[in-house]
Amino acid sequence: FPPPESESDESWVWTQIKAEAHRDADSEPALASYLYSTVLSHPSLDRSLSFHLANKLCSSTLLSTLLYDLFLRSFSTHPTVLSAAVADLLAARHRDPACVSFSHCLLNYKGFLAVQAHRVAHVLWTQSRRPLALALHSRIADVFSVDIHPAARIGKGILLDHATGVVVGETAVIGNNVSILHHVTLGGTGKMGGDRHPKIGDGVLIGAGATILGNIRIGEGAKIGAGSVVLIDVPPRTTAVGNPARLVGGKEKPSRHE
Amino acid sequence: FPPPESESDESWVWTQIKAEAHRDADSEPALASYLYSTVLSHPSLDRSLSFHLANKLCSSTLLSTLLYDLFLRSFSTHPTVLSAAVADLLAARHRDPACVSFSHCLLNYKGFLAVQAHRVAHVLWTQSRRPLALALHSRIADVFSVDIHPAARIGKGILLDHATGVVVGETAVIGNNVSILHHVTLGGTGKMGGDRHPKIGDGVLIGAGATILGNIRIGEGAKIGAGSVVLIDVPPRTTAVGNPARLVGGKEKPSRHE
Amino acid sequence: FPPPESESDESWVWTQIKAEAHRDADSEPALASYLYSTVLSHPSLDRSLSFHLANKLCSSTLLSTLLYDLFLRSFSTHPTVLSAAVADLLAARHRDPACVSFSHCLLNYKGFLAVQAHRVAHVLWTQSRRPLALALHSRIADVFSVDIHPAARIGKGILLDHATGVVVGETAVIGNNVSILHHVTLGGTGKMGGDRHPKIGDGVLIGAGATILGNIRIGEGAKIGAGSVVLIDVPPRTTAVGNPARLVGGKEKPSRHE
Repeated sequence: FPPPESESDESWVWTQIKAEAHRDADSEPALASYLYSTVLSHPSLDRSLSFHLANKLCSSTLLSTLLYDLFLRSFSTHPTVLSAAVADLLAARHRDPACVSFSHCLLNYKGFLAVQAHRVAHVLWTQSRRPLALALHSRIADVFSVDIHPAARIGKGILLDHATGVVVGETAVIGNNVSILHHVTLGGTGKMGGDRHPKIGDGVLIGAGATILGNIRIGEGAKIGAGSVVLIDVPPRTTAVGNPARLVGGKEKPSRHE
Repeated sequence: FPPPESESDESWVWTQIKAEAHRDADSEPALASYLYSTVLSHPSLDRSLSFHLANKLCSSTLLSTLLYDLFLRSFSTHPTVLSAAVADLLAARHRDPACVSFSHCLLNYKGFLAVQAHRVAHVLWTQSRRPLALALHSRIADVFSVDIHPAARIGKGILLDHATGVVVGETAVIGNNVSILHHVTLGGTGKMGGDRHPKIGDGVLIGAGATILGNIRIGEGAKIGAGSVVLIDVPPRTTAVGNPARLVGGKEKPSRHE
Repeated sequence: FPPPESESDESWVWTQIKAEAHRDADSEPALASYLYSTVLSHPSLDRSLSFHLANKLCSSTLLSTLLYDLFLRSFSTHPTVLSAAVADLLAARHRDPACVSFSHCLLNYKGFLAVQAHRVAHVLWTQSRRPLALALHSRIADVFSVDIHPAARIGKGILLDHATGVVVGETAVIGNNVSILHHVTLGGTGKMGGDRHPKIGDGVLIGAGATILGNIRIGEGAKIGAGSVVLIDVPPRTTAVGNPARLVGGKEKPSRHE
């Protein structure tokens, strides 16, 4: 799904989303009103996404209008937040065979929506608006069962597939083009503070239910098997599996892939 | 809990549910209005279930009236969807010692409710109403933290116990009388499309947190231990445990149960 | 965070919470209305907590007013329920380095809120108001993805960190000052009824994704590693890790900590 060179990714993806929503609204009248309010009534991706996130995350005490303004302002003052969302949409289409359209991801993927809301919570955190960042974090954890601390730094082109139960700690760092399945934990090993969570390199794939603990480094392009418990560094382009995880091919001469 | 032979399972179960709701409304005035609106005001199981699911799954953009009509029409035009719900209610009463009544399961079991809503999403999927099937799938995943792809085929007499975090992929097939605990994944092993998810035989029991990956076959009556990571076929009436899972009794001569 | 000896824990913690909420409302106007309605408008911790829980757990059929009255009455007639909440707030501040304030825990920690609502469900259960206890249990499981059977007995000073996916069975018992990470299961091993769930001693720490099954005893001060599957008793002050879990230091001479 490469957009043509003559057009920005954002503009191209938004055009696709509107075309998909038009097609779906025509074929499914029961969804027409829903698609109109979430996609077709909006002039741009940032407004559609802000509206959708605000409706998902609002509560009787945290109003959707407040959240809509917050998301919209964050997207407009931090263009990298929106361009990362576009990269995530492209990543879902490329890497998830069950992702049938961009609008499917935008509207339905709780992992995608949780990451976009997290990026806004992270902006608030870096602006020292911590109470608001934490209130938003709490709503994301309630609504999507995805618990990413607002201080955690996350790259672009991220796929949180299925996403339920993902937990990412305060000092975790996730690179670009990382795929993370559901129930994955990037956690700490004890109660001490400080830099205590994993650092995940570019292009890493983390299987369902993997638990990665401590200030360790998962090298770029590494793969972590489903259900692994990882307590050691994993070199680039290496696979780790098991509980506790061992490097496939042995510790001294791990087999590299690609 | 075998219904008498003179009466259909559905009619008998619905009679039990109404009697239970009457008894509970009498003993607990705080629940009377709730039980009236969810059970006692309805003339039949399909209407009670449609009302309850619509209220659980609706959102500010996906209205409960639309969902109520959708569920009710699906139950009336696909009688096997409702009879599978009845079989699930009987399965919960038989197999879950914590299930104290049919109405308890109908009203409170997120696994039961997620499976019923999934069956309707599956009907929509087979009718090529995919955008609506995926929108419903997304609401089930948000509300119940149960993520069953609408294309997945599921039998009857299913018990999803606790249910939080269950993930079932697009090409998975689940037989009849299967019990699945929480955090169970029936997933794929990579990013390729096609037939890539497990096939679960009749009467299988899958323990909490088990991860079953790839187009493999779990034979009828097999048991999968809690926390197992299963990447190989499991013969009928055999137990698999561990990460990676091995067959209890060894690969060549696995011990059979029953 | 030891309160002064001259003041009760509850009064001191509530004074801290109000001061924190005042400070946050001043620094973040977008949260002022939220903090007023959840904290600052209330004369006491029990009213603030009842209001917040009722808003989180209500639905279109289970009204917030009903839940507010229920929580408030439970806190006033069972003072140990509120004092346990205070002990939990102190535990989160002591043991979780990401917990930046008492109000952060009160407003945002789904594990904290799930445990407080569970204690009220447990009071209802012991009063034989089981349908209401189970309805509340179901809402807690839906909203927080935390599934604690209302019959389960839980001590004070409890930290459910992250909390998503925690499952605690009907006959489980949890002591005081226990820390439980997300995705932890205290479950049964089969379909038989009776006393079938784990007993967790004081001061135990259970890592993310650990699955503890059967009527076994985890001794006081024991530690259970992340991702472990525990099917055997663990002696006091001993560490168990792995799938199946083994005692660190061997079965006969397990190494003790502290």
